[in-house]
Amino acid sequence: MENGEEKKELKYESYVVVHNIAKRHNVGTLARSATAFGVAELILVGRRDFNAFGSHGSTSHVRFRHFHSLSLARTFLKEKDCDICGVEITDNAMPVNAHPFRKSTAFLVGNEGTGLSPKECEICDFFVYIPQYGGGTASLNVTVAASIVLQHFAVWAGFSERTREGNKFLVAEKSANQTGRRFCAETAESIAEERKLKKENAANGFFSENGNNENPSNLLDSLFDS
Amino acid sequence: MENGEEKKELKYESYVVVHNIAKRHNVGTLARSATAFGVAELILVGRRDFNAFGSHGSTSHVRFRHFHSLSLARTFLKEKDCDICGVEITDNAMPVNAHPFRKSTAFLVGNEGTGLSPKECEICDFFVYIPQYGGGTASLNVTVAASIVLQHFAVWAGFSERTREGNKFLVAEKSANQTGRRFCAETAESIAEERKLKKENAANGFFSENGNNENPSNLLDSLFDS
Repeated sequence: MENGEEKKELKYESYVVVHNIAKRHNVGTLARSATAFGVAELILVGRRDFNAFGSHGSTSHVRFRHFHSLSLARTFLKEKDCDICGVEITDNAMPVNAHPFRKSTAFLVGNEGTGLSPKECEICDFFVYIPQYGGGTASLNVTVAASIVLQHFAVWAGFSERTREGNKFLVAEKSANQTGRRFCAETAESIAEERKLKKENAANGFFSENGNNENPSNLLDSLFDS
Repeated sequence: MENGEEKKELKYESYVVVHNIAKRHNVGTLARSATAFGVAELILVGRRDFNAFGSHGSTSHVRFRHFHSLSLARTFLKEKDCDICGVEITDNAMPVNAHPFRKSTAFLVGNEGTGLSPKECEICDFFVYIPQYGGGTASLNVTVAASIVLQHFAVWAGFSERTREGNKFLVAEKSANQTGRRFCAETAESIAEERKLKKENAANGFFSENGNNENPSNLLDSLFDS
């Protein structure tokens, strides 16, 4: 059981890498799981699907980053001393519940249907897969698969659990124009961090540029297909 | 680690229970995860969303069951000596990665947004929740949450892992009209089991009745929002 694992210092980070994201790829749900499981950055390589990311509010707790090629993404991640882990059913893939992790890890997830290409597999240091037990499907929805892997990594890495309030986890953001939702109090730090994130994400072209704060809704909330 | 847990006999079963399923609820992805993680039956209580279930092919590896009330569902599950576990962030909920399971378990999942109602909570023997580590979302997509819980249960229960072929798990069905997919060879048993399932599901009203086998596609494949 994970309980038996020693509490680690908060020194590990996780990343999600998606290469040439498919339109059908549910980016909203993926981003939602990414923030729930403490992912440091969601990295898009190649195609950026502006339709999915644009035209929604202004801010988010997921940091987005874009690279034009897999090798540029790999260089960036290697400078951060990250392992790159392909989420794929390969011969040498380890079951995710065995927690075959060593340090900060970037998870490369495939576009559903095709799995990871040989070129994508090339940049991976190792692979994990999610064991299946029933005969009705050949593979999982890619967002479900990514979420399961991120959850196991967060447990392994000993991330600090988020505070709960009632039946929800606290959302670390305050939005004056929204009512009926629970938000924790803003702090000077959270405001500064949010502004920084917003500026960075805008500079990366992930958000619409006509955001004038009249509708400061959370990007993730907008994307969620709840 | 789960590795340290003793291999159990294949004596446990898992069930998924959804009460008054919401339209926005992604039934296709839920069913796909259910079959991947060896769920015995997907139980709908109250409303049956025929739009989501009907008009697609003829067969599936998920067994569907319907009850008109939560108490009828509870009676059925208790006759099977099942625990009923609510997937909800309650004060006394256990983290799912602690594997607080004892025997066959039915997982009651909420309709996204509202969580489990007091009446739903009443039929639960205990609760699990999925710890979160980032501040960007108050809760997970319900199908993602259910999938994570089912995956942990399957590991705990020691379900037999499905055979893989290449980068996919084998789908235990053959469909003559479909090409370009991998199917394992049909056996007399699998044909009989499939016919039985099809008949049962049809009797429960989950499938369109004009299915004349001209389009013997897998229901799950049709539902999947891949």
